[in-house]
Amino acid sequence: MARYQVILAYDGTDFLGFQRQGADTRTVQREIEAALRCLNWQGESILASGRTDTGVHASGQVIAFDLNWKHSVEALERALNANLPDEIAVSKVKETSADFHPRFDARFRTYEYTIYSVPYRNPLRDRYAWHVWPSVNLVLLNKAAALLPGTHDFVVMGTPPPRKGGSTQRTIYQAEWHNLQASGMRFEITANAFLYHMVRRLVFLTVMVAAGKISLESLSEGLQAVRPQIPGLAPPQGLVLKKVRFKDEDAVKSVE
Amino acid sequence: MARYQVILAYDGTDFLGFQRQGADTRTVQREIEAALRCLNWQGESILASGRTDTGVHASGQVIAFDLNWKHSVEALERALNANLPDEIAVSKVKETSADFHPRFDARFRTYEYTIYSVPYRNPLRDRYAWHVWPSVNLVLLNKAAALLPGTHDFVVMGTPPPRKGGSTQRTIYQAEWHNLQASGMRFEITANAFLYHMVRRLVFLTVMVAAGKISLESLSEGLQAVRPQIPGLAPPQGLVLKKVRFKDEDAVKSVE
Repeated sequence: MARYQVILAYDGTDFLGFQRQGADTRTVQREIEAALRCLNWQGESILASGRTDTGVHASGQVIAFDLNWKHSVEALERALNANLPDEIAVSKVKETSADFHPRFDARFRTYEYTIYSVPYRNPLRDRYAWHVWPSVNLVLLNKAAALLPGTHDFVVMGTPPPRKGGSTQRTIYQAEWHNLQASGMRFEITANAFLYHMVRRLVFLTVMVAAGKISLESLSEGLQAVRPQIPGLAPPQGLVLKKVRFKDEDAVKSVE
Repeated sequence: MARYQVILAYDGTDFLGFQRQGADTRTVQREIEAALRCLNWQGESILASGRTDTGVHASGQVIAFDLNWKHSVEALERALNANLPDEIAVSKVKETSADFHPRFDARFRTYEYTIYSVPYRNPLRDRYAWHVWPSVNLVLLNKAAALLPGTHDFVVMGTPPPRKGGSTQRTIYQAEWHNLQASGMRFEITANAFLYHMVRRLVFLTVMVAAGKISLESLSEGLQAVRPQIPGLAPPQGLVLKKVRFKDEDAVKSVE
């Protein structure tokens, strides 16, 4: 028996999020556990770095599980992929220490959020991006994004963890918007961890600031936790869990 | 009654191609005609620049139809989009001359084909690109692509039109591979017209030449129509009908 660490990419469109729910609910976790059971996995639950929400994608989700496997890690990768639906792909399987935990050991999580700004909706982009029109200005987006790095209490910008006494303080290390080809823009944000809905709320806020609909001050007050919950959420399909980094480890790269 | 020209973008994944078939077959044409009938359209068939195949996308398909419409073209655009499924979006509706025909009047058609070359399949790219691994070299791809421009008989590289006596001669004006971000590459090809499957066959051939599996000479012989049909076809999901240009007209731009 050994513990394995696996990087995972998935198109979240047709899943009700990552986390296993009822038996009839199609989630990423359920599919992976079903694939593992075909390999005679006896565990109760796999471990994951983060629970992505319904419709949210991942290119660098990290999971771990214990498995009695007599062949190579390459063979395990092939066996898992053979048992998984096309929307999920496993890469870079490696054996790890028996106490490795992809959530508790994670130190940095990076998400990406993509928007596109053209006058007409494009069905070829809607699956992985939010259509924002009228277009917003990159300089203004980054004025808003520049307020985010640092340690803040994000209680007004994300849903606190369900456990009582869970902290809502998070540290954002980097938050920036970039231009893409063809009037696309991408937000990249790295933090130690995120609250539920926090990235989509921050995306929504920076876009609303750039659109002139929310003031920089409101955003700033939100970061000081002096306002009630700020409403509004960017839609899920623009969001990708890109990369997770762990203590004592190089970056765990996402699939490109 | 007036004739309208409309640019259309669609995600072809869940359609059995563009062209209307039986009543139970979900095609792009069937959806558009159903949307038009809600606007009291009495026609028998819309006209289109090209019939894309099952799973092939479009960002610049051009269609035309006659309609008795008393409001603005903007209102027509909104009304059509309201009646169409999310996978199809109409843009740039304009009134055109009564004899405009999007197929017979088209002078230039541009298709794009996208591949990506990373060691692992990425479900976030598979819907709009072909996963090619081991990776192929851009210089070699373009050595093959450089053979294509000119007027050739493409009988061995595409399926001839079903009508007897239809010519299989086509003129390619431009054919080139470009690098994209994140190990992606895109083929762009413009011709007066294409045979059925021709673009996907040319993509397959240039990739096979770059992979060292087909010689440049075989490709060259194919262009001289001295070989039997060359087998192999790139998968549909990488292909997008990008742009159509007409006589006496500026480029009809695609949706970005």
